[in-house]
Amino acid sequence: LFMQGGAIGENAIVPMNLLGAKTSIDFINTGEWSKKSMKEAKRYAKVNVAASDEANGFTGIPARNTWKLDADAAYVHICSNETIGGVEYHFTPDVGAVPLVADMSSNILSRPVDVARYGLIYGGAQKNIGPAGLTIVIVRDDLLGHAMPLCPSAFNYAEQAENDSMLNTPPTYGIYIAGLVFNWIKAQGGLVAMEAHNRAKAAVLYDYLDESRFFSNPIARDARSLMNVPFKLKDANLDAEFLKGAQARGMVQLKGHRSVGGMRASIYNAMPVEGVKALVAYMKEFEVRHG
Amino acid sequence: LFMQGGAIGENAIVPMNLLGAKTSIDFINTGEWSKKSMKEAKRYAKVNVAASDEANGFTGIPARNTWKLDADAAYVHICSNETIGGVEYHFTPDVGAVPLVADMSSNILSRPVDVARYGLIYGGAQKNIGPAGLTIVIVRDDLLGHAMPLCPSAFNYAEQAENDSMLNTPPTYGIYIAGLVFNWIKAQGGLVAMEAHNRAKAAVLYDYLDESRFFSNPIARDARSLMNVPFKLKDANLDAEFLKGAQARGMVQLKGHRSVGGMRASIYNAMPVEGVKALVAYMKEFEVRHG
Repeated sequence: LFMQGGAIGENAIVPMNLLGAKTSIDFINTGEWSKKSMKEAKRYAKVNVAASDEANGFTGIPARNTWKLDADAAYVHICSNETIGGVEYHFTPDVGAVPLVADMSSNILSRPVDVARYGLIYGGAQKNIGPAGLTIVIVRDDLLGHAMPLCPSAFNYAEQAENDSMLNTPPTYGIYIAGLVFNWIKAQGGLVAMEAHNRAKAAVLYDYLDESRFFSNPIARDARSLMNVPFKLKDANLDAEFLKGAQARGMVQLKGHRSVGGMRASIYNAMPVEGVKALVAYMKEFEVRHG
Repeated sequence: LFMQGGAIGENAIVPMNLLGAKTSIDFINTGEWSKKSMKEAKRYAKVNVAASDEANGFTGIPARNTWKLDADAAYVHICSNETIGGVEYHFTPDVGAVPLVADMSSNILSRPVDVARYGLIYGGAQKNIGPAGLTIVIVRDDLLGHAMPLCPSAFNYAEQAENDSMLNTPPTYGIYIAGLVFNWIKAQGGLVAMEAHNRAKAAVLYDYLDESRFFSNPIARDARSLMNVPFKLKDANLDAEFLKGAQARGMVQLKGHRSVGGMRASIYNAMPVEGVKALVAYMKEFEVRHG
């Protein structure tokens, strides 16, 4: 379905549609976007935090065997890539008969996904799909038709499915651009090729971070995001100088989110490996100068 | 505010935001879009139809002195232009101390509006503002902050106002194009010039419809829309031939909405007077041939 609420809108729209006769939802809390989802879901349901990495400063994915799932939950919600924290799932968790729901806003189309293992996948388009203002929802047929009476028609997945996502006027330009991006991905060799591209790109940066004594990334190796790479300088007083020098070389938007500080390199599908190599070359220079 | 729910989304989002401690809303029912608004509002409030033109087939605006307003309503809702029916308000109704709310999706920016007389104005962008996927809301400051707890953050006007419409990622391309359209309107001479342009354009078509014995428009003269002009052929069996001939001349999308049949010429700001003259020239030919 093509929707228009953005990720934060969908955080609320998903429970409105999927709660049905159930009263609670299981969440795996891996960072800021998990928390936003929980905040919105609380308007409609009991939120059960089945696992959380908050005590570790959101530096990894809680091991699957530690999740305290409720067999009577409406669904289990994960955020497959935490854009701010740089934490990504590199496995699809088995959650039994309860539907698995994933906010894939920031890693959708970055690699192949076994869609059949999810009850619902949603994501804002603006990372790997197209322009902001378009949200994609992939939902299993049997999960349609259970919306709460208070769910607006425009945000009711069953009504949108019946109307081919045109119950209201859809964001036509965004959908058109998404089509061009889908074709571009196919021409690159599809999602298998995108994954190889993204792994190679991220490795350039993580390999350097691992050897550097000046820059560091705090995320557990098995949960490092291929899309968003946060890193810190040894001395935060040099952050401003680092950003200024990066900008002078045409590298912008490297400042980390204010909630975590430091730096963040967002290296979505569209970023070529040359961009990451240029960043690492600059980081090496900076380390030699200040390390 | 820049929102993303489209007109149908906003039909539900407005009551979620404005109902506050009140329990009912007054609606003036002038056609399909009024009805869509009422359908969505019923999820949250008692809907009081203070006046309706349904018994007349939605061919005019009920006279103000017939409206049965409730002084305790949360607000009075009007649809300032019914896109499907071709009925438009050519006055701003005085509704006393209760806030006046208008769905202006299809006539916003077509003429000057005394915004101060409205509590809230909303509209999808795709007629006179910019691409589909962007919704504009103009809301009085004192009406902010009364959203129902079940209102998603992304659709909460107070939260969006506090975040300069960027609580979630806004539809950036749509907002950019809207800015270009605003500048274009200013360059044309502003809304005073747009109104003169729209009046002149619509007169070409209505004057012909009034003199024609083959084509007719059913709307009361004081409620005729300057944006959407529905008309019927004397013999509906000729509809297909009329549409085919129009298409051959480069005039498309003239088929009326399925709920009312016949034809509809949508002549928004962007339509030049030459377009309307070309349509009338074709209609005259068609009348001579079939009249």
